[in-house]
Amino acid sequence: MPTGRARRSPSADAAGLPVAVDAMGGDKAPGEIVSGARQAVAELGVPVVLVGRREDLGDTGDLEVLDASEVVAMDEDPAQGVRRKKDSSLVRAAEAVRDGRASAMVSAGNTGATMASALLRMGRLPGVVRPAIATPIPNPGTHPTVLLDAGANAECTAAMLVQFAQMGAAYSRARYGIGEPSVALLSIGEEPTKGTPLVKETHAALAALGSLRFVGNVEGRDLLPGTADVVVTDGFTGNVVLKTLEGSLRFFMSALGEVFGRDEATARAAEALLPHLGPLAEEFDPDNTGGAMLLGVDGVCVISHGSSSARAVVSAVGVARDVVAAGLVASLAEAVAAPGR
Amino acid sequence: MPTGRARRSPSADAAGLPVAVDAMGGDKAPGEIVSGARQAVAELGVPVVLVGRREDLGDTGDLEVLDASEVVAMDEDPAQGVRRKKDSSLVRAAEAVRDGRASAMVSAGNTGATMASALLRMGRLPGVVRPAIATPIPNPGTHPTVLLDAGANAECTAAMLVQFAQMGAAYSRARYGIGEPSVALLSIGEEPTKGTPLVKETHAALAALGSLRFVGNVEGRDLLPGTADVVVTDGFTGNVVLKTLEGSLRFFMSALGEVFGRDEATARAAEALLPHLGPLAEEFDPDNTGGAMLLGVDGVCVISHGSSSARAVVSAVGVARDVVAAGLVASLAEAVAAPGR
Repeated sequence: MPTGRARRSPSADAAGLPVAVDAMGGDKAPGEIVSGARQAVAELGVPVVLVGRREDLGDTGDLEVLDASEVVAMDEDPAQGVRRKKDSSLVRAAEAVRDGRASAMVSAGNTGATMASALLRMGRLPGVVRPAIATPIPNPGTHPTVLLDAGANAECTAAMLVQFAQMGAAYSRARYGIGEPSVALLSIGEEPTKGTPLVKETHAALAALGSLRFVGNVEGRDLLPGTADVVVTDGFTGNVVLKTLEGSLRFFMSALGEVFGRDEATARAAEALLPHLGPLAEEFDPDNTGGAMLLGVDGVCVISHGSSSARAVVSAVGVARDVVAAGLVASLAEAVAAPGR
Repeated sequence: MPTGRARRSPSADAAGLPVAVDAMGGDKAPGEIVSGARQAVAELGVPVVLVGRREDLGDTGDLEVLDASEVVAMDEDPAQGVRRKKDSSLVRAAEAVRDGRASAMVSAGNTGATMASALLRMGRLPGVVRPAIATPIPNPGTHPTVLLDAGANAECTAAMLVQFAQMGAAYSRARYGIGEPSVALLSIGEEPTKGTPLVKETHAALAALGSLRFVGNVEGRDLLPGTADVVVTDGFTGNVVLKTLEGSLRFFMSALGEVFGRDEATARAAEALLPHLGPLAEEFDPDNTGGAMLLGVDGVCVISHGSSSARAVVSAVGVARDVVAAGLVASLAEAVAAPGR
């Protein structure tokens, strides 16, 4: 979807611009979103522009507000929503990035509509076949593993997966400062002969690439121990895997909570353990991870989870600031244009 | 792979026959396998025939031994191993079932080779396109969810997935006594329009079937809470998901263990909690779940995990006995031949 316009020069200029926060997106919008945006300004010193219906936003303090009269609902059809609601907070936020009035956009709203807005308004980076969602999987004690695609493309080709690998590595570098990130392919066995035809073809292409530190296939059980810095998969598998991890995390937390509450002795035990378990739980709290990122569009787009609290918005704004400063978009463009592709 | 022979009459005859246990398969073979087989006889009263190299088996007590001079190694190419090693314990165990000398086979060996042996020697049930591996996902307090395909077929068609649904329901009935099991399709959203073309086509076919209690799509996060009795997916996704669950279980156990051992106070807390956490851990211990089952071949084939202990062999033999008694194979044949397919 080429837009015909010259590409903005990245980082240097963008760093001084505000982050556009979709004030209307998310289960707790606008209250928690506005509150988080204000905290981000106060705590991080990052300028923020709120995008949404001014009259619904409550006390916005000193924050700049970009008016947008419409809202794409959480359960609305993404493509239709974005096409019809040209004055929605999502579309206006994406336009602010496109027009150089914001350095990045952040939304906790309808994920599909966030992707569609970013794709339609910012456009794809030159050479990118399809953008992908990169999601951090926490590794307590060290940097997260980047999993992509987490759901933007249910069906993928090997060429797409190779680009996801290139973009995932660039992202791991920009966001976590990993010099030469290890990149793995998700499969059902370590051998290059295991998996679907798509996985085998992608394995061969990645092994031949040369410009990446490709470490071969990993399996589902290698995700949480953080065996690789970047794990590449199609958006169907990636989404199922992430939700499986979420579900098992929730299951264990709730099972543990149930045991803690069983009697006086277990309640005392819980008291002794909570100071130790707390930091672990914090690492897995999606409010702290800074959200997912849409890679491959011509701008920074942070996708925060639907039930984002103010804290999640602060994290997301911080991440947006960091990757803008690191020149993520330019690095992504370079990565997909790398020789050997 | 039609075998040309008349199909054995199920349950009634088979129930008196011994279960053929591959004594050479698994990381702890033959020691733990032989020990487990002896325990199964003693504890469950199920007759067992050990299949393997008699001279390697140690003390086999009163157990019958079926001699097999070869072993398919855990890391050997499954198809080649089975084709070349016609006197292997796996092939002989499958032949014992085919020839009516055993009611079922159990192996903790090379999974691919176990499947290949069962498929080549027992043959497929009439009408079955491809057999699938059904794996139980524990639901503390109630019966497990049956997930299939857990890895037999990396690539699937909608017709295959519909048969997996039919076989999974028949298995849930035979193994857990669920009258009308709920059957769900694994996808990336509840809407019928979500997922790959394969998933959408399968959704439509299952919805039109009539003979199953199809409850629609479920997501990865619905697996552990046991939202449905049977969850259907392709063997690539199923395998990745199961290993992701395994990995997250192992991760949380080890994180909890690390916290427990941190100081005296946490060690005391652990002591108070272990009587409560123990039963939960037991439910998730693969040694207790009875293993996976290959559905769609003309005989009962239980696939126990590679690191099976004696306890796992006892569970697997118990499951084999139960599904033989419940007439599983006949039910599977009926299920795939059901009108409305």
